[in-house]
Amino acid sequence: MSELRWDPLKNSWVIMTLGHSRRPQEFLQKRQEDCAPEGSDYQRLQMPEDNCPLCSGHEGRTPPEIMACRPQGSAPNEPGWQVRVIPNKFPALRIEGELENRAEGLYDRMNGIGAHELIVETPDHGKTLADLSEVQIAEVLKAYRSRMLDLRKDSRFRYIFIFKNHGVGTSSTISHAHSQLMAVPLMPPLISHELEQCRKHFQQKERCLVCDLIRQEQQHKSRIVRDDGNFLVYAPYASRFPFELMIAPLAHHHDFAQQSDQQLRLLARTLRDILQRLRTALRDPAYSLILHSSPPRHPRMGRPDYWESLPFDYHWHIELAPKLTRLTGFEWGSGFHINPTPPEEAAEFLRSAEPGL
Amino acid sequence: MSELRWDPLKNSWVIMTLGHSRRPQEFLQKRQEDCAPEGSDYQRLQMPEDNCPLCSGHEGRTPPEIMACRPQGSAPNEPGWQVRVIPNKFPALRIEGELENRAEGLYDRMNGIGAHELIVETPDHGKTLADLSEVQIAEVLKAYRSRMLDLRKDSRFRYIFIFKNHGVGTSSTISHAHSQLMAVPLMPPLISHELEQCRKHFQQKERCLVCDLIRQEQQHKSRIVRDDGNFLVYAPYASRFPFELMIAPLAHHHDFAQQSDQQLRLLARTLRDILQRLRTALRDPAYSLILHSSPPRHPRMGRPDYWESLPFDYHWHIELAPKLTRLTGFEWGSGFHINPTPPEEAAEFLRSAEPGL
Repeated sequence: MSELRWDPLKNSWVIMTLGHSRRPQEFLQKRQEDCAPEGSDYQRLQMPEDNCPLCSGHEGRTPPEIMACRPQGSAPNEPGWQVRVIPNKFPALRIEGELENRAEGLYDRMNGIGAHELIVETPDHGKTLADLSEVQIAEVLKAYRSRMLDLRKDSRFRYIFIFKNHGVGTSSTISHAHSQLMAVPLMPPLISHELEQCRKHFQQKERCLVCDLIRQEQQHKSRIVRDDGNFLVYAPYASRFPFELMIAPLAHHHDFAQQSDQQLRLLARTLRDILQRLRTALRDPAYSLILHSSPPRHPRMGRPDYWESLPFDYHWHIELAPKLTRLTGFEWGSGFHINPTPPEEAAEFLRSAEPGL
Repeated sequence: MSELRWDPLKNSWVIMTLGHSRRPQEFLQKRQEDCAPEGSDYQRLQMPEDNCPLCSGHEGRTPPEIMACRPQGSAPNEPGWQVRVIPNKFPALRIEGELENRAEGLYDRMNGIGAHELIVETPDHGKTLADLSEVQIAEVLKAYRSRMLDLRKDSRFRYIFIFKNHGVGTSSTISHAHSQLMAVPLMPPLISHELEQCRKHFQQKERCLVCDLIRQEQQHKSRIVRDDGNFLVYAPYASRFPFELMIAPLAHHHDFAQQSDQQLRLLARTLRDILQRLRTALRDPAYSLILHSSPPRHPRMGRPDYWESLPFDYHWHIELAPKLTRLTGFEWGSGFHINPTPPEEAAEFLRSAEPGL
């Protein structure tokens, strides 16, 4: 079980794992493992195919599937699927129970209600997301959409957070290509912050902030990596990390879950191109990918991160950041990021990279 | 040279290193180095004593000293010092020039004005902060105080940020024991946030928030590691990291720089005890230490992080966090932290650790 804790000094929530918490001795062991060479080749070696619970043929080793993209008539939890969604066996948040929210003196506490799912992107252990076809990547994106739409119906959840860690150094312990979904009972602070900024901008100007940023980037050109008329990929002006990328639809829309099959197919094309460029240019770096979309619409009292309605002034997008540097003491202590690679240089380098290698 | 960049979507500033920025090729090399075993023994091996520019006898290899704790009559930049403060040879921010603050379309840009100094904690290459005597640690703290008081006079600086990284995994490239100081032209977001929370609490209740937290922790007891009647060390209720610690004076004071020699001596006693406990209990973990104090008082227009007066409602303290886990994609993308070790367990473990081993 886990709980969410709030401290008034930081005004931020922390997910505290209880019960299966990590004892000091475990951290001492962990040091050795951290020192394995980075890169997905080594990582794939770490969990051989015949032990991998996410591989086709091993469906019985995971909890029963929530959904799968599989041929008509094929049975659930059997081979034949292309994309498969399963509950995380070791969830950070659990789906069972009523949401409890109470004060503990000056502190706040909520029980760790949520959902934690894995989206297995391919039955093939040897493939990464970048290896998949456009059609297959689109199926992964459709699984994202489908799970978002389903979990939104649950009024306990404030946000459906979808992300992907690729490669060692991202705390991913499973090497088989997968994304993760966490339905959380509170708005994630960074998403909440963006929503606020977009709302303020819209209130002042009656324009979408991200639409404005996109137009400015298109005029300026130096930070753009790819623009195919549907999706823009650019290195943000104030990139926090080297080679951080923003992937946004040119057409304004607040909600990923309302995108058409055709839109997701175009996004898959862009994503494939960019992941392949990163792989070529930076030799298959570890990376994290985060989907930013508007929150579900629920009435619930009490929290300042509560949104009365779907914020149409938001603009959904994907953040993609290779993990090339570690956060320093200065960064985690101050809240400032230090980035040694200006986005103009990163964009130029990625523009000239071959996607297809 | 470097610059500070602001992006309206995140509403956060990033320090962008220009000129000596890191090219993609460098990241590829870096991967190898990252995989060295963690721990300070190895780290000390990495830069042998005869090459270390921070060692006694090598004063000529650093920029001239800004100040030093040395016997009366001994010459600057010669051996004999106990603590020595020097400019960082590769500063993230530079001291020369006027502060420029301008818009670039929707973005904001400032030039990278600031100070970046190293506080060398001992002339002895083989010692860590935990190895030093109480008196010697107090000299280090006095150097912090002295540099804060001096740099506060410069009205370009909004905050004097003092921190220390110990051990591999904290991006520290110099193994000789040292702290760092960065004078920054903007309030660090996390400090700013705490100041705001303290101000709000004071406005509502006419009490200091941290004083209230201290009293609550003293009543609850389970998260306290050490309480000697002068300084309280506890694991915060919503600790973001395993074994994260808060070190705060029991007596209310907003400003570290106004602490007496006697207070610093008592702080040195607490710090030494805690660093030795961490070393024993977690086998010399890498850690970061951050000093939180009220900002200097300057009139300057324009920024929302501008403070009209010293916020007496703040309560200075030190944050100390071993680096036992890496941030996950979920954490840096959502702004939520996931902590696998509840503070109650961490505190119990550290209470029972022997400081003197």
